[in-house]
Amino acid sequence: MFIWNEADRAQQKATLERPAVTISDELEKVVAKIIAEVELNGDEALLEYARKFDKRAQPRLLVSAEEIQASEGVISAELKQAIDQAYSNIRAFHALQVPVEKRLETQPGVMCELKYQAIEAVGLYVPGGSAPLPSSVLMQGVCAQLAGAQTIVLCTPVNGEQGIDPAILYAAKKCGITTIVESGGAGAIAAMALGTQSVPKVDKVFGPGNAFVTMAKQLLSQSLPGFAIDMPAGPSEVLVIADERTNPAYVAADLLSQAEHGPDSQVLLLSNSKQLIKEVQGELDRQLLHLSRADIAKQALENSTLILVEDIEQAFAVSAEYGPEHLILQLGEPEPYLPLVKNAGSVFVGDYTPESAGDYASGTNHVLPTYGYSRCYSSLNLLDFYRTYTQQTISKGGLQLLSKAILPLAEAEGLDAHANAVKIRLENNA
Amino acid sequence: MFIWNEADRAQQKATLERPAVTISDELEKVVAKIIAEVELNGDEALLEYARKFDKRAQPRLLVSAEEIQASEGVISAELKQAIDQAYSNIRAFHALQVPVEKRLETQPGVMCELKYQAIEAVGLYVPGGSAPLPSSVLMQGVCAQLAGAQTIVLCTPVNGEQGIDPAILYAAKKCGITTIVESGGAGAIAAMALGTQSVPKVDKVFGPGNAFVTMAKQLLSQSLPGFAIDMPAGPSEVLVIADERTNPAYVAADLLSQAEHGPDSQVLLLSNSKQLIKEVQGELDRQLLHLSRADIAKQALENSTLILVEDIEQAFAVSAEYGPEHLILQLGEPEPYLPLVKNAGSVFVGDYTPESAGDYASGTNHVLPTYGYSRCYSSLNLLDFYRTYTQQTISKGGLQLLSKAILPLAEAEGLDAHANAVKIRLENNA
Repeated sequence: MFIWNEADRAQQKATLERPAVTISDELEKVVAKIIAEVELNGDEALLEYARKFDKRAQPRLLVSAEEIQASEGVISAELKQAIDQAYSNIRAFHALQVPVEKRLETQPGVMCELKYQAIEAVGLYVPGGSAPLPSSVLMQGVCAQLAGAQTIVLCTPVNGEQGIDPAILYAAKKCGITTIVESGGAGAIAAMALGTQSVPKVDKVFGPGNAFVTMAKQLLSQSLPGFAIDMPAGPSEVLVIADERTNPAYVAADLLSQAEHGPDSQVLLLSNSKQLIKEVQGELDRQLLHLSRADIAKQALENSTLILVEDIEQAFAVSAEYGPEHLILQLGEPEPYLPLVKNAGSVFVGDYTPESAGDYASGTNHVLPTYGYSRCYSSLNLLDFYRTYTQQTISKGGLQLLSKAILPLAEAEGLDAHANAVKIRLENNA
Repeated sequence: MFIWNEADRAQQKATLERPAVTISDELEKVVAKIIAEVELNGDEALLEYARKFDKRAQPRLLVSAEEIQASEGVISAELKQAIDQAYSNIRAFHALQVPVEKRLETQPGVMCELKYQAIEAVGLYVPGGSAPLPSSVLMQGVCAQLAGAQTIVLCTPVNGEQGIDPAILYAAKKCGITTIVESGGAGAIAAMALGTQSVPKVDKVFGPGNAFVTMAKQLLSQSLPGFAIDMPAGPSEVLVIADERTNPAYVAADLLSQAEHGPDSQVLLLSNSKQLIKEVQGELDRQLLHLSRADIAKQALENSTLILVEDIEQAFAVSAEYGPEHLILQLGEPEPYLPLVKNAGSVFVGDYTPESAGDYASGTNHVLPTYGYSRCYSSLNLLDFYRTYTQQTISKGGLQLLSKAILPLAEAEGLDAHANAVKIRLENNA
């Protein structure tokens, strides 16, 4: 237990410090080579990686329409219903976010408009690993579908000969995705950014991934004009603020559900109750025994800290300093404290709002800024699949009026031709 | 004149290719050293750069409140009125963009909310150079003011002993900016990102700049967790689509107003009229004679291309492929073509809407994606000064219903602890 008010400022800062993510030059070189190979050899490079990294004897790239269609009959009724329900909630919440164009005549004859264009081609990445991640398909795919992207490409790795999990295919089908590529890692990111014979080139790539995927997204977004990525990546994290009346079993369960994500997950508890912190410690030990991913969770808990604060206000100040991806508020009366929320990716309010609700099905997006980026980055939202641009239409009289602002500013900035573009129009119509 | 339909695909692509921006390792090293020095020596490093790069014998960093206040009396009445008018239009158009929070009960007992938080501390960069750029202050400063950023820092370089131009100070005053720093280049960007004794640390830096500034923004946004920048930078560009009834003098004036920005500016004209293109060529030569920045404009025109297209529809297709920062439509009847606009930063419609209107005063923002980034990046808008986050509040009954979606998905993804965080709450209340 770390007692906030007994530590000096340096100790406080150190406690909130995230484990450094080391970016090795070696990793950068490997990924740069993969990008170059995909640029040069296209599909053939992807097939080669599938043979080499995914141990596939006869790899292919595109999933057939029949397989996507058939996925519905392969998964269990419970899982189908779960995906349907999650899809419906996520869709409803994101449909609220469809942007509305605006127009305003700022001066007589000067019409300004704010307009939106769906990003034309988007790439969604869904990591592989020990289990399929249909929720990751839904979180990205619903947005692409609602925005109306003309091209949606989904890449996900396949292990051995088993093919893509039908839960992934069914989630993709719900989102109207027809281009599904059996390819993962840096190669898949490069294929979407650059285009290959089978993989359409996209304008923006979304989704989480391992160090290779993250490095590929970073390198390509820096070097390829006109290509963007969703947000910087980092290990997942949760911060729970709990008071003395909280059930310690719930708190421990929430901390563990974050800890099981990976050994680099970060888990923080802030409480004004020494008693609660002690009970949570006991609960962590007890609940760990029953988890299939206990080893991973245990490693993550080593990076975690249970912090005793003076009062709940201080807890919110510490949370704002840390900037957690997930912020869980288990407080007797959370409402009065909500205005204190700052720098959080997604907030979970009350005893019956575990993080897993938002991870899967409440309707909010689970792609969130982490690693301190919640100070300046948004949670994934529908606008990430649009671009905003402006339009202006000025009448002869409008330009006449506006010239009183344009001409002195152009003169002050020493830009003759800017002034001339106005003058030539007004003189011609004097 | 480049005749689009007589060229093969490779020639077409080459014509739309932007001049490569070479990023030298040397530049990266120099900027990395500046960042390290600012981190180590803070204010003293900035003062040293002011002596060295800006030739200032007795540099200082912060402008006094009295000087900011006094700026109003120093500039001419015409310039003051121009700044006031531009400010008022830009403010009105951006005030339209204040985000509205949304809430939806996605299922009974599952309340989801979309919330907004102004980015707490923002840094605005205004380049120096041959003339002051008050318009750059307004475009960034109005947004910071409207969003309600708690800390707004403005950095701009000063040459010799002359101090910051009063037009800059007056524009800053209008935007409520009180922290103005006499510092430019990579050092200023590093100071805002890292904080020094005099310069508050900010979460996000906005604004254009030279190669050093751009490199500093790029390096810091990659390496400093929790720090963001506005958008990738590139040379400025305009694409004009004009038909046979357009006044060639207006087209030439618009091309030149872009060309005078810098020798690397890009200027394109697409027309279905050979006659118009010839007349524009004549007008360019004629108007160039009268420009104070004719040398710069002439160099930029060397990168420019006048393209003859089959029809106006083809012009829009070529424009979408290029993705111009500024798109000017000088067409007899532009309205029917507006739905064809794609991948443009800002659009200028009709004979009386020169680019300089948007550069200064119509109300739209002049910070725009360029270098092909208009495929995937937005024009600077008010939301760039906010972050979006979500909040959910679930009742006991809501979680019960939602568990039918959460539990099968957690099981499919092999995440026990995610399921457990739900089960433990339901069992406890069975």
